[in-house]
Amino acid sequence: MGFTTATVTATRRLAVGLVLFLALAAVKAEPLPSWNESESRSQIISFVEAVTDPGSPDFVPSAERIAVFDNDGTLWSEQPVYVQLVFAIDRVRALADEHPEWKTTQPFKAALEGDMEALLAAGKPGLLELLMASHAGTTTEEFAAIVLDWIASARHPRFDRAFTELVYQPMLELLGYLRDNGFQTWIVSGGGIEFMRPWAFEVYGVPPEQVIGSSIKTRFELRDGGPVLVRLPEVNFIDDKEGKPVAIHQFIGRRPIAAFGNSDGDLQMLQWTTAGDGRRLGVIIRHTDAEREWAYDRDSHIGRLDKALDEAAERGWVVVDMKEDWGRVYGFESSE
Amino acid sequence: MGFTTATVTATRRLAVGLVLFLALAAVKAEPLPSWNESESRSQIISFVEAVTDPGSPDFVPSAERIAVFDNDGTLWSEQPVYVQLVFAIDRVRALADEHPEWKTTQPFKAALEGDMEALLAAGKPGLLELLMASHAGTTTEEFAAIVLDWIASARHPRFDRAFTELVYQPMLELLGYLRDNGFQTWIVSGGGIEFMRPWAFEVYGVPPEQVIGSSIKTRFELRDGGPVLVRLPEVNFIDDKEGKPVAIHQFIGRRPIAAFGNSDGDLQMLQWTTAGDGRRLGVIIRHTDAEREWAYDRDSHIGRLDKALDEAAERGWVVVDMKEDWGRVYGFESSE
Repeated sequence: MGFTTATVTATRRLAVGLVLFLALAAVKAEPLPSWNESESRSQIISFVEAVTDPGSPDFVPSAERIAVFDNDGTLWSEQPVYVQLVFAIDRVRALADEHPEWKTTQPFKAALEGDMEALLAAGKPGLLELLMASHAGTTTEEFAAIVLDWIASARHPRFDRAFTELVYQPMLELLGYLRDNGFQTWIVSGGGIEFMRPWAFEVYGVPPEQVIGSSIKTRFELRDGGPVLVRLPEVNFIDDKEGKPVAIHQFIGRRPIAAFGNSDGDLQMLQWTTAGDGRRLGVIIRHTDAEREWAYDRDSHIGRLDKALDEAAERGWVVVDMKEDWGRVYGFESSE
Repeated sequence: MGFTTATVTATRRLAVGLVLFLALAAVKAEPLPSWNESESRSQIISFVEAVTDPGSPDFVPSAERIAVFDNDGTLWSEQPVYVQLVFAIDRVRALADEHPEWKTTQPFKAALEGDMEALLAAGKPGLLELLMASHAGTTTEEFAAIVLDWIASARHPRFDRAFTELVYQPMLELLGYLRDNGFQTWIVSGGGIEFMRPWAFEVYGVPPEQVIGSSIKTRFELRDGGPVLVRLPEVNFIDDKEGKPVAIHQFIGRRPIAAFGNSDGDLQMLQWTTAGDGRRLGVIIRHTDAEREWAYDRDSHIGRLDKALDEAAERGWVVVDMKEDWGRVYGFESSE
């Protein structure tokens, strides 16, 4: 009995070992498996090989291998509206009983009625009011719990799946490939820092301390139960456009060597990253696939890609064509 | 000849290997060698052993082992005045030719004349004016170069040594000991984030992305030579007192499990850290050694330690007595 168990165990271990070996060998042989054999894939791999090869003139020590990623539209889908706006609307609905006045005042009325046209007509001040009402007023720990609850249950209107299933499989592979090559992979998003941090590690493998985003102010308070940080209805920082290099410098304190974005909101991050000395990589994810995802660029209200696309050609940034360059977009698609 | 060289090489390798082995064994056997066999040393080691032992109820996964350190008075000396104030005065002197008006207007006149009494009489608004004039106006890269130049040449008035030699040897050992045990060691200082980052890795082994401090605003600009971040004479964030837990949450996004400070400016950081669930460590470095360093606490203008000392007893924070607990203070002291 002991002998048999031992034999079975040994055989199992061998089998597990073999599978692991084959899996590792496959990963080694074929990075970025969901990417087609495209020029953009080659350019990314060639960059990584150059900066990690100690014999290359482009070698960069591991500590300085900083890669920055936009989130909305770069790591997950941002259509038909930003995920965080769906969250804000759901929060307004959840809090509506405490605010009977919202039934008759904009932008809350529009949010409660799901009237996206009226909501967008409220413009930036209206959206900001909605964000403050839905994002402030709790402690930081309460807010993280609210976000985790929501993200676990909310469904995307088109795909009827969790929003975290609408992350791009090729980008997940890219994040992992960069980390395997000694990179730090940071998120630098216009979205809320506290909206992303609770789930960013599970979904992207990015720990909270490497997530940068927009934020509202917090206040330290001593309560009976102990100290808390209270979220205030006051903007602290907008991490978009010129704000991105500012935040990168503030949080990281080094200039990245690679930047990945998809819209004009990422233009300055791409400029700042690729203007540094030595070999640099700038990548734009271009939404060209109306069938599997969405197709939009110069005329889109969400994720407009116009100036950055013009500059990409001038500055030698890689433009990824989702339709052509990605074998699959989402992990839930059946593989070919 | 070949044989002899090979033999010598082999013998050398053996000798180097033996020395390395003994050195590692010594480190293993005796963490924190510059600490006396004190109660505070035992409490720190016992905490680290508990949170790193997978069999312990206090075990904490490596990713959550965040330790935060104040800088001035906790990692290096802050007497007779904060190092950064000496830097600010030297900057005002270097810029004086461009500002003839400074000869007759406070607080610049006091700075130029080295009149510390008049300088302190200018109070917080005066000091802030001095800081803005001396810290803003350059690009971030220019400022880093200025700091590095200064820190390489400036001398401490009492010891006539570089300021970076006035770091505490026992704290350097503690930083290394924590990192060897899977901790991230963050600096959370009232001092300027861009004043510390250029040299923090070389001196403390702390990379720029793990240095948090006070900051002024920066603005992204496209110049002929490429994009730059310009330092503006406008406060962005004061990382002191209530600001410390706010900044910890903003930058790290997790609650630390260990905090090290020396003054009332660290009180809220200690409260926030030690109020978390599970085993926590709060440590106060108490300046009790007028001979080797300085002795000051409740009545000091710099690094006042009053409320935090009262709370230490209530909350079970470790109070390190520099005179009693540290076998040596600075690395340059001859060992006993």
